[in-house]
Amino acid sequence: MARSVTREGAKRRPVAKTEKKMPRVVLKRLARYHQIAVRSGEEGQTYLSSASLANLVAVDATMVRKDMAAVGVTGRPKVGYFIGDVITRLGEVLGLVGTHDAVLIGCGSLGTAIARYTGFSRFGLKLVGIFDSDHAKVGKAVDSHLILPMEKCKSVIRIFKVKMAILTVPARVAQPTADWLVRQGIQGIWNFAPVDLRVPSHVKVRDENLAIGLAQLLYAIQQANRAK
Amino acid sequence: MARSVTREGAKRRPVAKTEKKMPRVVLKRLARYHQIAVRSGEEGQTYLSSASLANLVAVDATMVRKDMAAVGVTGRPKVGYFIGDVITRLGEVLGLVGTHDAVLIGCGSLGTAIARYTGFSRFGLKLVGIFDSDHAKVGKAVDSHLILPMEKCKSVIRIFKVKMAILTVPARVAQPTADWLVRQGIQGIWNFAPVDLRVPSHVKVRDENLAIGLAQLLYAIQQANRAK
Repeated sequence: MARSVTREGAKRRPVAKTEKKMPRVVLKRLARYHQIAVRSGEEGQTYLSSASLANLVAVDATMVRKDMAAVGVTGRPKVGYFIGDVITRLGEVLGLVGTHDAVLIGCGSLGTAIARYTGFSRFGLKLVGIFDSDHAKVGKAVDSHLILPMEKCKSVIRIFKVKMAILTVPARVAQPTADWLVRQGIQGIWNFAPVDLRVPSHVKVRDENLAIGLAQLLYAIQQANRAK
Repeated sequence: MARSVTREGAKRRPVAKTEKKMPRVVLKRLARYHQIAVRSGEEGQTYLSSASLANLVAVDATMVRKDMAAVGVTGRPKVGYFIGDVITRLGEVLGLVGTHDAVLIGCGSLGTAIARYTGFSRFGLKLVGIFDSDHAKVGKAVDSHLILPMEKCKSVIRIFKVKMAILTVPARVAQPTADWLVRQGIQGIWNFAPVDLRVPSHVKVRDENLAIGLAQLLYAIQQANRAK
C-alpha cells in the first residue's frame, strides 16, 4: 500500500504533503469525502462537485478543492471530481486499500452488531475470527462467523498475521485483554470498551466511548434548555 | 435539573464556571470522571484519588483537582473524592440526572444492539419506543421492546414528550428522518448514520460516524508501518 503511493507519487505534485503525518482534522475530512464518494458511486453517480462535497461535509468549497489538490485529486471544471479517482486516491492516502484482517474480542450485544455490520468491508476490514471467553457462547453463529473460544485467539492471530483487533469486552477486562493483544503482536486496537486503554507507543488505539458521546449530547440539550 | 444546580449553587464557590458553556475537552474529562466513578462505585469502592483518576484518564493529577474544584467537588487529603459526591455533582453538571426518554429509529443490527445495551440507563436514558419503517420487522421483540411501525412514532413522541432520538437508519434516509424528527419537536439527535446531519441551531446533534473512526485507525497503523 505504502509503496504504491510512493511509486505513483512522481506523477503528482504535492506528494510530500501526503507523506507527512496529516492533522487529525484534515484526515477526518478526507475520510468523509471518501465515504461520500463510495456512497454516491453506489447510488450510480459518476462525478462529485466540490460544492456538493462542501455542502455534505459542512465546510467551504475552497477547502474541499484545497484538500483534494493536496492529495493529488484533480477535478474537471463544471463537472467535478471523478468518483473513481476520489475513492482510489483517498483510499490509498487513508490506507483503506487492501484487506485488513481483524479479530473481534467480546461477543456481547455490541460485538455481535459489529460482527454483523457489513459496512466496514468497504474499508477492506475482514473479520478472520470472533472470540469470547464465555464458553456458553462458543460455537454459536453470528451470521457467517462462529464464536471461537479465547484460547484459539493466539493461533488465529499468528496464522493470519492479524494486526488489528476490535475490542468489545466489558470495561473491567479491557486493559488486560489489550495488554495480551499487544503481546500477540497486534498493532491497532479499535476499542469500544468504556476505558481509555494504555498501550505502547507503537500500538495505535481508537477509543469509541459511546457513553461519553451520549453525555456530551445530554449536556448540550440541557444547556440549550437553560439558555431559554 | 438546571434548577437544582442554581438552588444549591450558593453553597459552592465557582458556580459561575459551571453555568457558562464548558469547552468540549473539559466536558469530555468530566464525563470520563463520572463514568469511572460509577464503575468504581459498582465495584464497591467508596473513594477515588485524584492520582488514580488522572492515571485512568491519562491527564495530570493537578488537572483533575482543578476540574473537580471548578464544579465544586472537594476531596479529603490522602483519601480522595467521595464517589457519591462525584457521581451526584458531575451528574448534575452534565445533565445526567433524571430520566431522558428517547425514541430509537431504525432497528438494523446497530439499532438492535443499542436497544439491547443496558449501559446507557446509567445516564437515565430510557427508550420509550423503537421504530422501523420495514413492516416485516414490526412486532418483533428486541429484549423488552417491540418494534413499532414508523406511523406510531409521532404519537409516541407527543404522548411521552420525547426530546431525544437515536438515529440508526441507513445513510440515504438519515437527513429526511432527522428533518421529520425536528418537526416533531425533537431537541437532540444521537446519530449513528454515516452522514453529517444538518439541523436548526436549537437542535443538538452528536454524530457517531464509526466508519470515520475506523478510517483514522487504519491510517494511524499505516503511518506507523511507513515510519519503520
